[in-house]
Amino acid sequence: MSLHVYNTLSRQKEKFEPIKPPFVGMYLCGPTVYGDPHLGHARSAVTFDIVYRYLVHLGYKVRYVRNITDVGHLENDADEGDDKIAKKARLEQLEPMEVAQAYTNNYHRDMDMLNVKRPSIEPRATGHIIEQIESIQKIIKNGYAYEAEGSIYFDVEAYHKKFNYGILSGRVIEDLRSNTRDLDGQSEKRSPLDFALWKKANPEHIMRWNSPWGSGFPGWHIECTAMAAKYLGDRFDIHGGGMDLTFPHHECEIAQSEASVGTSPAKYWMHNNMITIDGKKMGKSYGNFINLQEFFDGSHTFLEQAYSPMTIRLYILQAQYRSTLDISNTSLKAAQVAFRKLLNTYKTLPKISYTEQETKDDKFQAEIQKAIDLAYEGMNDDFNTGIALSAMFAMSGFINQFFTGQKPTGAVPKELFDKLVHTYTVFFTDVLGFVEENYISSESTVTSLLEIYKDAKEAKAYDKVDQIRALLKKEGVAVKDMKGKVDWAYEV
Amino acid sequence: MSLHVYNTLSRQKEKFEPIKPPFVGMYLCGPTVYGDPHLGHARSAVTFDIVYRYLVHLGYKVRYVRNITDVGHLENDADEGDDKIAKKARLEQLEPMEVAQAYTNNYHRDMDMLNVKRPSIEPRATGHIIEQIESIQKIIKNGYAYEAEGSIYFDVEAYHKKFNYGILSGRVIEDLRSNTRDLDGQSEKRSPLDFALWKKANPEHIMRWNSPWGSGFPGWHIECTAMAAKYLGDRFDIHGGGMDLTFPHHECEIAQSEASVGTSPAKYWMHNNMITIDGKKMGKSYGNFINLQEFFDGSHTFLEQAYSPMTIRLYILQAQYRSTLDISNTSLKAAQVAFRKLLNTYKTLPKISYTEQETKDDKFQAEIQKAIDLAYEGMNDDFNTGIALSAMFAMSGFINQFFTGQKPTGAVPKELFDKLVHTYTVFFTDVLGFVEENYISSESTVTSLLEIYKDAKEAKAYDKVDQIRALLKKEGVAVKDMKGKVDWAYEV
Repeated sequence: MSLHVYNTLSRQKEKFEPIKPPFVGMYLCGPTVYGDPHLGHARSAVTFDIVYRYLVHLGYKVRYVRNITDVGHLENDADEGDDKIAKKARLEQLEPMEVAQAYTNNYHRDMDMLNVKRPSIEPRATGHIIEQIESIQKIIKNGYAYEAEGSIYFDVEAYHKKFNYGILSGRVIEDLRSNTRDLDGQSEKRSPLDFALWKKANPEHIMRWNSPWGSGFPGWHIECTAMAAKYLGDRFDIHGGGMDLTFPHHECEIAQSEASVGTSPAKYWMHNNMITIDGKKMGKSYGNFINLQEFFDGSHTFLEQAYSPMTIRLYILQAQYRSTLDISNTSLKAAQVAFRKLLNTYKTLPKISYTEQETKDDKFQAEIQKAIDLAYEGMNDDFNTGIALSAMFAMSGFINQFFTGQKPTGAVPKELFDKLVHTYTVFFTDVLGFVEENYISSESTVTSLLEIYKDAKEAKAYDKVDQIRALLKKEGVAVKDMKGKVDWAYEV
Repeated sequence: MSLHVYNTLSRQKEKFEPIKPPFVGMYLCGPTVYGDPHLGHARSAVTFDIVYRYLVHLGYKVRYVRNITDVGHLENDADEGDDKIAKKARLEQLEPMEVAQAYTNNYHRDMDMLNVKRPSIEPRATGHIIEQIESIQKIIKNGYAYEAEGSIYFDVEAYHKKFNYGILSGRVIEDLRSNTRDLDGQSEKRSPLDFALWKKANPEHIMRWNSPWGSGFPGWHIECTAMAAKYLGDRFDIHGGGMDLTFPHHECEIAQSEASVGTSPAKYWMHNNMITIDGKKMGKSYGNFINLQEFFDGSHTFLEQAYSPMTIRLYILQAQYRSTLDISNTSLKAAQVAFRKLLNTYKTLPKISYTEQETKDDKFQAEIQKAIDLAYEGMNDDFNTGIALSAMFAMSGFINQFFTGQKPTGAVPKELFDKLVHTYTVFFTDVLGFVEENYISSESTVTSLLEIYKDAKEAKAYDKVDQIRALLKKEGVAVKDMKGKVDWAYEV
């Protein structure tokens, strides 16, 4: 069974066939860096981290581009309101780029903790103004954009005469027309459906660049079109993002690409579903988000305890990425238990060695093979990590039977045993992207050992005293016997 | 005593007086991202991390800009040869931006390990092409640059008629003239002293942008001029970098600023000295560099063991930044001992409590006060971290006397005791930027405990068995008694 991907564009699962195998070009809409990353960011990043990892695992050479939006994302989608980053900068009395830098750093920190792989290229919107201006010039030249008072707007009506505005999102232009208020001469746009490619900067606007149309800044949608084309070419394989970006952002990207270079940018459009909390969408714009750091330290009032990065990662992977994911403490705690079980099994692997025996257990063999196959079937079915995880638990059970001696390893052929160990390892680390977490705080172990040491010293059990002292020395810990107290320090 | 800074421009120590207190603008030349960071990168980054930290400690509001050079740095300083990143990309068969991204990530990883603070803004050269083009346009307009075959060169001779080319580096233009070979009509430059502001791109050149002069790429020097001015203004307080950048890079920056906006960019120019290995300069261009990861894992043949990030940090800080620093295993090992001693003392601080007593030890008081003063005197004398460290060792000695009970805490007034603890803490963490390193691998402690557990079980010493089992449970470790063996797993 080969990899199948749900394509938002065709509204069905399609066989994955890259344009120029073995190369795969993949673009993911990254964060607008004006706030700390929350679970919604994590879901999108982890989802496409899995896509990236699995494609690499299958042998594809993937160029993975994920942008940083540091300009042009306005507070509402109608090209009005403040730039999100400039507003935050004003509130915090900083240069906008200081805000963008700080939240970019936090994004990297949190994604690293979740073991999300860094993309091959991470372009910033402000770093590609020239490319955006050049894309806009092409659109104007082709007759799909117009200048008005120093701003440039995409002409949706003109575009729709030749192309299909709504092809991705399924929106119908007649509905869009009747659902938007009439402009009443209040706007410089020809139609309320038009969107900004370039906005003239007001005098108080800090983030601005010179352009053929005067001083201004790019619209939010054009950045992805310009950066994706620069690093992946006009047509590439996968474009991903959160489902909320389908309209208008991705719809506009398609229109911009068609209008500038005459091709739809991506072959496969993939969208991850939203996180809900008590059934409501979670996000900064909804005002009910929980930061990742708050999950990691348990400081948000909603949370009954801290949840480790790998707990969060497994939690996200339990659901297929196109389903909504509702958070609750009960299910987070279950994810914690689940991850620790998988980790414990992973840690036993080096301790199990294969011993040949003559009689084989055919039923057991079949079960193991089935679990291995299931892991791949799950991933091949549009990256269904929920299925892959259930296969991991089945494998974990078999491995534990070997480890505890309930089943002799020789009950299955060596080849199958090796395949089980290899598949479990590869899925744990490379494909699902888990890392070991250490739940033992070693200093308190040392402190507890010193308690035993003190008791032994008082009881004059000097062999025990020597044993513990030697054990700690091996660990690089020097026991310090002082008047009336015992403490420890690192050996220097 | 107030802060004094050695200014390369005046060749003397000057009282530090920022242009607009309490604000300080500081620019540091960051890495050219075409290779893994080595000790030379670490020295520059740690040096200016100290400058940044100490200025913040003194109450200044610092905007700290450190760039990423991802285009335009050619293999030799005469505007010839390959772009360093493009060459690496060709060797590795990657898009240049993939190379830049990967080594930027590695730079961040290693600097984070050294606990170097991230700058407030970290601009990339490729992200500021518009700003560089605009700076070049100003220089042309002012008559200090000319176009030749689609490239733009800075006219050093024209500049030197009005300004002083050599003001920073002390180079004398007559010497420069006689030391450069005649162009013999081989070059499009008017004079061999001229340097490129913009280079026409050959057809095979990948990194290129449209400009008023055709398709090309910026010269290396202009990026810093454009980015520093964008984020810090035309004139700011501190410009830093390695001593090897004084000429031509920083000399050219001054010329570009004077020629474009009529002012020298920075009030104070600070340069850190080089690392030597067996007396020879270390660096990628000298072919004898040791990567930071090689220090951290001890894998380089020169190294007799691994040296932790904090060992490297302390090693760098032992010398004043304007002295050369030669590396040897003996001195690295000494740095390891030194850091562990400071760390051990830092970890004892919470364990010492003050108890009032009537008789005071005047001599001891005076010694403590002297050590505290010395720490500040060292830092105020051009960031002499070697002096500050010797003050730390003196303080460490006093603290250990309190800890072991050699001296009663009450021998000094509570105020002074608190000041000692506070100064030691602030210098350890904020000013010198150390972090705790954990040298205990907790898993092996657990394994060793299980050995004791097994012995006890065999000897039927069940109280000991229960004691260890309880101790491990407290640590989140479940003891697994199996047939013929004992193991552990995380509690799930």
